[in-house]
Amino acid sequence: MQIAVLLFDRFTALDAVGPYEVLSRLPEANTVFVAERPGPVTNDMGTLTLVAAASFEEITLPDVVVVPGGPGQVEQSAGGPLVDWLRTVDPTTTWTTSVCTGALILGAAGLLEGRRATTHWLATDRLPTYGAIHSADRVVTDGKYVTAAGVSAGIDMALTLAAEIAGVEIAKGLQLLIEYDPQPPFDAGSVQSAPSSVVAALRARL
Amino acid sequence: MQIAVLLFDRFTALDAVGPYEVLSRLPEANTVFVAERPGPVTNDMGTLTLVAAASFEEITLPDVVVVPGGPGQVEQSAGGPLVDWLRTVDPTTTWTTSVCTGALILGAAGLLEGRRATTHWLATDRLPTYGAIHSADRVVTDGKYVTAAGVSAGIDMALTLAAEIAGVEIAKGLQLLIEYDPQPPFDAGSVQSAPSSVVAALRARL
Repeated sequence: MQIAVLLFDRFTALDAVGPYEVLSRLPEANTVFVAERPGPVTNDMGTLTLVAAASFEEITLPDVVVVPGGPGQVEQSAGGPLVDWLRTVDPTTTWTTSVCTGALILGAAGLLEGRRATTHWLATDRLPTYGAIHSADRVVTDGKYVTAAGVSAGIDMALTLAAEIAGVEIAKGLQLLIEYDPQPPFDAGSVQSAPSSVVAALRARL
Repeated sequence: MQIAVLLFDRFTALDAVGPYEVLSRLPEANTVFVAERPGPVTNDMGTLTLVAAASFEEITLPDVVVVPGGPGQVEQSAGGPLVDWLRTVDPTTTWTTSVCTGALILGAAGLLEGRRATTHWLATDRLPTYGAIHSADRVVTDGKYVTAAGVSAGIDMALTLAAEIAGVEIAKGLQLLIEYDPQPPFDAGSVQSAPSSVVAALRARL
């Protein structure tokens, strides 16, 4: 089972690495970081560089595709090699997935037309642009398309997907392996729970 | 404020990238991935390569140090440049932290003597080897030493630390930015909650 995790300039690191940490540990997983060109790809903060092991040309039949988000999504969604590659490989994937604003890249590739989906809370109003219907769930499955909310939601998505792919027992084993028993020190992870001052400050800044 | 995230061969990616995603977004954070030598460092699965931007020699006065864990910890804890570097920089850090079995590297550097600490659930019995006292909390703060439980616990640790460094309002903003409103599909993230069959399988395998 080949799992392709996409990389592009100014991606958000945890969008990619969260799901990677779970999915790469599935039995028989063959995980590969893919980008337009093999080699270093730097994240949105400019301080983390991941190495893409393969180019789009080299990966033609991935079983699972994971598309992260991040500020670089804007450039990717405008069209180009990544969106073209997604259109090419999607017909033969078992699961096509995204985290955060990676959903907008799936949308730009035409893959979310008429489908329920989610994305980072600051970007949900962009989903209808691509014919997608926003669902308020943290992880949204519509057929073989699985989209997750912002950044850290990719971990929840990956565990959901792990159970679909390998069964609940394996998924629970992966959850225990990464000791995913979350205890956030604050209750501020959603627009509903965060103080309105915090929500307003982020909306103003981004 | 310089934040140094350590890398070494066969580290666990999420141990490093979880805290990085939060801490690198703190106001005035200057985050750098550090290793014995600058350049590519490959993780425990062999399929993710991060680039270290600086060598130990180049980073002499970090304010915050984050030590990830992973199978490569065994080699590091046996002694060598990483442990030597930790001993050298620790006296001037504001916070010295670890995720997962990174705590055992702090221990090997002699930094957890007489301190409360935690690590991955499979490694807690190793803490006393270094004079540390295991605490059952997910994030353990003893003075300027902050240790987190396995892998994903680094996110909870980083939010705790973000509040200490920049205040609760900023920390809540970062939690909302990464939409950290965890909803694991299963309740299997701790030895207490996971089915005993799952715990036994992991103990047998690792």
